[in-house]
Amino acid sequence: MNNAFPHESTDCANLPKTIALIGKYHSQEIAESLRMLARYLHERGITVLIEEETARNLVSQLDLRSWASGSFSWLGAHADMAIVLGGDGTMLNAARQLARYRVPLVGVNQGRLGFMTDISRSDMLASMDSLLDGQFVPETRMLLEAEVTRDERLVAAHLALNDVVVDKGAIGRMIEFELFVDGEFIYHLRSDGLIVATSTGSTAYALSANGPILHPQVSAIALVPLCPHSLTNRPILVGDRNEIEIRIVHGIDSRAHFDGQVTVDLKNGDCVRLRRSEYSICLLHPPGHSYFAMLRQKLHWSERPKEH
Amino acid sequence: MNNAFPHESTDCANLPKTIALIGKYHSQEIAESLRMLARYLHERGITVLIEEETARNLVSQLDLRSWASGSFSWLGAHADMAIVLGGDGTMLNAARQLARYRVPLVGVNQGRLGFMTDISRSDMLASMDSLLDGQFVPETRMLLEAEVTRDERLVAAHLALNDVVVDKGAIGRMIEFELFVDGEFIYHLRSDGLIVATSTGSTAYALSANGPILHPQVSAIALVPLCPHSLTNRPILVGDRNEIEIRIVHGIDSRAHFDGQVTVDLKNGDCVRLRRSEYSICLLHPPGHSYFAMLRQKLHWSERPKEH
Amino acid sequence: MNNAFPHESTDCANLPKTIALIGKYHSQEIAESLRMLARYLHERGITVLIEEETARNLVSQLDLRSWASGSFSWLGAHADMAIVLGGDGTMLNAARQLARYRVPLVGVNQGRLGFMTDISRSDMLASMDSLLDGQFVPETRMLLEAEVTRDERLVAAHLALNDVVVDKGAIGRMIEFELFVDGEFIYHLRSDGLIVATSTGSTAYALSANGPILHPQVSAIALVPLCPHSLTNRPILVGDRNEIEIRIVHGIDSRAHFDGQVTVDLKNGDCVRLRRSEYSICLLHPPGHSYFAMLRQKLHWSERPKEH
Amino acid sequence: MNNAFPHESTDCANLPKTIALIGKYHSQEIAESLRMLARYLHERGITVLIEEETARNLVSQLDLRSWASGSFSWLGAHADMAIVLGGDGTMLNAARQLARYRVPLVGVNQGRLGFMTDISRSDMLASMDSLLDGQFVPETRMLLEAEVTRDERLVAAHLALNDVVVDKGAIGRMIEFELFVDGEFIYHLRSDGLIVATSTGSTAYALSANGPILHPQVSAIALVPLCPHSLTNRPILVGDRNEIEIRIVHGIDSRAHFDGQVTVDLKNGDCVRLRRSEYSICLLHPPGHSYFAMLRQKLHWSERPKEH
Repeated sequence: MNNAFPHESTDCANLPKTIALIGKYHSQEIAESLRMLARYLHERGITVLIEEETARNLVSQLDLRSWASGSFSWLGAHADMAIVLGGDGTMLNAARQLARYRVPLVGVNQGRLGFMTDISRSDMLASMDSLLDGQFVPETRMLLEAEVTRDERLVAAHLALNDVVVDKGAIGRMIEFELFVDGEFIYHLRSDGLIVATSTGSTAYALSANGPILHPQVSAIALVPLCPHSLTNRPILVGDRNEIEIRIVHGIDSRAHFDGQVTVDLKNGDCVRLRRSEYSICLLHPPGHSYFAMLRQKLHWSERPKEH
Repeated sequence: MNNAFPHESTDCANLPKTIALIGKYHSQEIAESLRMLARYLHERGITVLIEEETARNLVSQLDLRSWASGSFSWLGAHADMAIVLGGDGTMLNAARQLARYRVPLVGVNQGRLGFMTDISRSDMLASMDSLLDGQFVPETRMLLEAEVTRDERLVAAHLALNDVVVDKGAIGRMIEFELFVDGEFIYHLRSDGLIVATSTGSTAYALSANGPILHPQVSAIALVPLCPHSLTNRPILVGDRNEIEIRIVHGIDSRAHFDGQVTVDLKNGDCVRLRRSEYSICLLHPPGHSYFAMLRQKLHWSERPKEH
Repeated sequence: MNNAFPHESTDCANLPKTIALIGKYHSQEIAESLRMLARYLHERGITVLIEEETARNLVSQLDLRSWASGSFSWLGAHADMAIVLGGDGTMLNAARQLARYRVPLVGVNQGRLGFMTDISRSDMLASMDSLLDGQFVPETRMLLEAEVTRDERLVAAHLALNDVVVDKGAIGRMIEFELFVDGEFIYHLRSDGLIVATSTGSTAYALSANGPILHPQVSAIALVPLCPHSLTNRPILVGDRNEIEIRIVHGIDSRAHFDGQVTVDLKNGDCVRLRRSEYSICLLHPPGHSYFAMLRQKLHWSERPKEH
Repeated sequence: MNNAFPHESTDCANLPKTIALIGKYHSQEIAESLRMLARYLHERGITVLIEEETARNLVSQLDLRSWASGSFSWLGAHADMAIVLGGDGTMLNAARQLARYRVPLVGVNQGRLGFMTDISRSDMLASMDSLLDGQFVPETRMLLEAEVTRDERLVAAHLALNDVVVDKGAIGRMIEFELFVDGEFIYHLRSDGLIVATSTGSTAYALSANGPILHPQVSAIALVPLCPHSLTNRPILVGDRNEIEIRIVHGIDSRAHFDGQVTVDLKNGDCVRLRRSEYSICLLHPPGHSYFAMLRQKLHWSERPKEH
């Protein structure tokens, strides 16, 4: 659909030979799953790599001599695929770290279904069989690329899979900013902030701020205001080719958050520029995966009544 | 952007030789504008056609012998362009009637800026000069094509530029329906109804039901529930290639509305199937037109403060 | 709390000697419960009366010679208390019918917890013991009294426990009305309609239209617009001593609904006048009943995590 | 209306002999109005007092020898009335400072109509005549009294006229808290925070967070969640006699804000307890003042069409 994006990982479903395992940050709970998974993959002839923070965290519970471990960039250079054990937060971090290396991701949750971590721990090993047999369904998700500039100088640059949020800080005063799309002035707003979300992020923070749900196939970027002082300001969707710019007019205590995991302090006059990244991430879903079935379960939507 | 759609009117900005004039339904107010416009175009060497209802309504105020008049299909066969004098409602009707003939539309409002009728009466003649000089900016808007089937039998089929709404009727009882996308069951809902809106319709009824605003370039269809009984049901955006189906489970008094102008009574078990129409409409905007500037004016968003 | 209201049923928790039983309209499912309940109360020395529609509906399943049956007004004259077997809809009807007779109500649901029918079928007989021992907790709920006038002439008058809704009809066109509070003009609005809700009704239709939840002890009336054309129109709460008036400006197909159960057709120029009724209804809750616990269960709010 | 509240300033409309003037914080713009107002009142035989920060700020523009100045507590002890020149923010601060002294407040805005500062600068002197003639309309507004406790120890206590907000801080992570009303557990929520608003505050921050508008005569407290993680969590209104408690479960970076002007850092386990203050504030409005007319102007609601 977006052939103009050269780095689109269209071949993301090739059979993997080397798999990276990435665990939830500072969690001990995943140790047993990780050990089980590593052994299982090893027995199936796969070279297993462990992300170094995960390895360090579980040093007492893993037989570390068995598995090579290294940084995300090293994993990016060597792995054909990465399996994330954790929640959506772990997935977000892995996606930002690995996007430029075009490593597809598989998500295994630790008990609670995630929007992206769709394999349950109990189905983990059975799912691996499908995965290694090439039966997984690839799905491409866009990322946002954001730059923060101050006096024309670049002060930060980050990717985001869910959202980039510009908001007020601890003082609790509204911020005031101007929004531009492709250089055109759109509006001037006083509010708690603005969420710029991808379709992936539309079910995260943006949803709690009354933003709409975007099916992953919708190529759009959602601009969702946080407690806008103007009651007629509503969520807007622009195209994924548009460049968005947020200029801080008053916001001495304002901040930019990337996937809620990386924070940059902003000053009056700072600009946050966003566009679709040249990199996408490929999520691999088990056979039978349905985006809407997942939504239905997460949001407690009605199933069809029994008599149907 | 959508080359797969064969009837996309990409050549909609060719210089017109024959122009159809369409007036607001049963309005006398437009007589003076219409007469002035017809004469002006005639003096510029344009063949002027009048839509027959408009002509009949203004029979006492127009010199009818001067201008040929006929049905929408006749206009569609002969006109290179149509100018609508009225509000967005007049535009919606003209768009549905002329879409299959690929006649581009120009909208002249009658005092109040419309989302689509963006030329004011006072700018009308000056705008015509730009138009006849080929300086207008074409913009393509998708239409929805909807079919209502009962017991597998087609009972109605209509186009919509804004929205197709399935809702409760006069009894005031919630309806109950099932939603499918591309044949997949999405949810079962009791509510006052469901709005299926295009980006064009996102600033109409859907906006008052808490739907998001879709920039016209966003290729998506918005599904906005009306007073959903389930508090977790939220507006969803799906792609413009998706087929949407609404099956009435309980709704003895339910109805389908097309652009709020055509109504079809529904029965239990009826299906309303929607997809992007093969026809699009081309709107011609005067030079300098800005979608966001229009939004800002209509929704009273903040301009930049004066000191900027 | 509202001593100015003379008919307030402050003695609503006296020990009952005669109890009316009211079943869900046209439901066969309640026959077994009703029979069991009638016998149980009879054995406890209570005189049992059956509402006549309920009796007629279940004629083949009840031993009708055992129980006297009669109209709501007859029940109102003779019963000390009424037990409703059904859902909130059955309760609403019983409340409107019995309010003027100051008969307290007890609600037994038929499987699904209701906002007002808070005793489950399985707890029914055990709850009766508490009830007959005078351990039930009385709670007073206000009703709305509404009059529809046309050309200064009264055309309809109804009570409502949940809400009075003025809305559009089957044509699907917005209505246009003016709102007055205590004779003062408040606003002119085009919308799908307006919900005027009591605190009891705040968890019903008004909630799905983005209205707030009012604890039953809050003495206020909620005015919740339905899809307002003006984006700055929001739910407003006024005092329960205020008189509210809705004047239909344009709404040839508009209607007034009382608790969603009684409908009156409206015409242009009609006025709907609302005020707190002089009658209140007394709900009797089993010991340990908690409004918020019920809300938590109905709305799936989070319990405290287990580790607490 | 609330006779149980002993300190209710029912005599707030007595003719004033000593009037305190309070200016917008650090604003030079009000100097001219303040000077004109002081002289005018002096000529009418009123003793004029100036709030000391206002005097210090305008030292170069006021003839300070003419007027006595002092702290809010000194003003509270000596003034019969206070006139605030500024916006709603100035009014909020004055109200919290003077509430315990039962000094009625009059608000003069500096160009933009405020929710509470309802006299325009151009009407200021004419309004003073009405005021000194005793024609002003008193209106009582409740305040919230909040205590923050840590390990059973009081760490802060503040009043609020608009709202008490508990929210996340600069890190941007959701906080997690438990809500209790009169000691009963209500819900456990993860969100950006919670607004506890009076009717006065219902048109301030709470409105931008989708809270309802409460007429000042409605005796209720609004609990409005900020971006709740649970989509079924909605604004709730409880009575003004209820005690509300918020217990921070996780929120290492959370804060409590009082009228958006005073901030207290919170820690895990902290409790914020709120109840209606024993003090109320009396606002004095010019003759003809209408709450709804003010709302209509501030929120751009529709007037009645011209033809009426």
